[in-house]
Amino acid sequence: MKGKSFPARFISFEGIDGCGKSTLMDGLSRWLDEAGIHSIRTREPGGTPMGESVRELLLDPAYKGMNQQAEVLLYTASRAQLVDEVIRPALEKGIWVLTDRYIDATLAYQGYGRGLDLAILRRLQDWATGGLWPDRTILLDCDLDTAMLRMRGRNSRPDRMELETRAFHQRVRDGYLALAAEEPDRILIMDASKSVEEVAEDLHAALRRASMF
Amino acid sequence: MKGKSFPARFISFEGIDGCGKSTLMDGLSRWLDEAGIHSIRTREPGGTPMGESVRELLLDPAYKGMNQQAEVLLYTASRAQLVDEVIRPALEKGIWVLTDRYIDATLAYQGYGRGLDLAILRRLQDWATGGLWPDRTILLDCDLDTAMLRMRGRNSRPDRMELETRAFHQRVRDGYLALAAEEPDRILIMDASKSVEEVAEDLHAALRRASMF
Repeated sequence: MKGKSFPARFISFEGIDGCGKSTLMDGLSRWLDEAGIHSIRTREPGGTPMGESVRELLLDPAYKGMNQQAEVLLYTASRAQLVDEVIRPALEKGIWVLTDRYIDATLAYQGYGRGLDLAILRRLQDWATGGLWPDRTILLDCDLDTAMLRMRGRNSRPDRMELETRAFHQRVRDGYLALAAEEPDRILIMDASKSVEEVAEDLHAALRRASMF
Repeated sequence: MKGKSFPARFISFEGIDGCGKSTLMDGLSRWLDEAGIHSIRTREPGGTPMGESVRELLLDPAYKGMNQQAEVLLYTASRAQLVDEVIRPALEKGIWVLTDRYIDATLAYQGYGRGLDLAILRRLQDWATGGLWPDRTILLDCDLDTAMLRMRGRNSRPDRMELETRAFHQRVRDGYLALAAEEPDRILIMDASKSVEEVAEDLHAALRRASMF
């Protein structure tokens, strides 16, 4: 496999916090390295100097009264900058891009979670990103209890989104599953209640089936 | 006039920097006070704790490579928060609101100035503000040389928008005039090349003609 050239792929990782996105991204980065495929890894909100400033704003528990539209607009601003400054330039150079969250996060959290109109959110995302959707999206799905248990293990102060109600996070999880049901070719669901090794194996197999890797 | 009750009005002040918005807003605030009309004054971007953080980001010359969509989204996020937290609550209590810039600034700067699609920008503004447009907009119009001369007098470090080219600021001025031509009942053009006293007198007369004051 080493050195074989692949068209650059754009892969997003999604799921509620605590489902193991980072660990799985570590795994994929490593396999790509071993296969001689150049890749970069980024995250949302953030990934650029401007985006990281927006991230601080978005996750700061001080802004508890943030307006719902304002929240969408800040996430989307960070995304527009990330696409322009990082993602598109990398893909144009043939470099794979792995991102921790992307468009689907806005649809799941602000659409399904907060009840904002999905059609409007999709149009906004298309405009902000110049229509750049991921080639594949890895949805790490697990129940809320599992995710919360893992989050507690991190032992850090919860951010503004993590402070949301259990009902909110349940709507987000259900929303992600609804998005995956609509686009089964793009969004691959991984059972994140399995062990880290098993999930990694499932991802490997899924990407091979999709001729991605 | 004192104590007479008016329906609360929402008035925005627009125009390129250096045209005298602040001075004129000072005047209107004073007249409203004297007439026993309760008013508040705010500004964009900013006007809320979240908005002021966004303002810093937007005006920081360090973010010279800001993506055009990201710029619109940040201005609009600040606006959505301002409407929700400040403007709408004030109007509901019968308090007049004067704001230094609002929706028309996005249409003039990002629409006419940067060439982004005006129809998309209008839809975005409607969604972000819940359709709250100003009752009246005072457009302070003057030529670029006059504005630049006044700006220089302020002697402060130019911000990211002020560092734009002369051609950009000319498109913004022309854009404001085009907006005013489309909505002559809402947008009142003041000749800002006149003296401060004359402009104030013109505004007073215009608001009386419009039965606003």
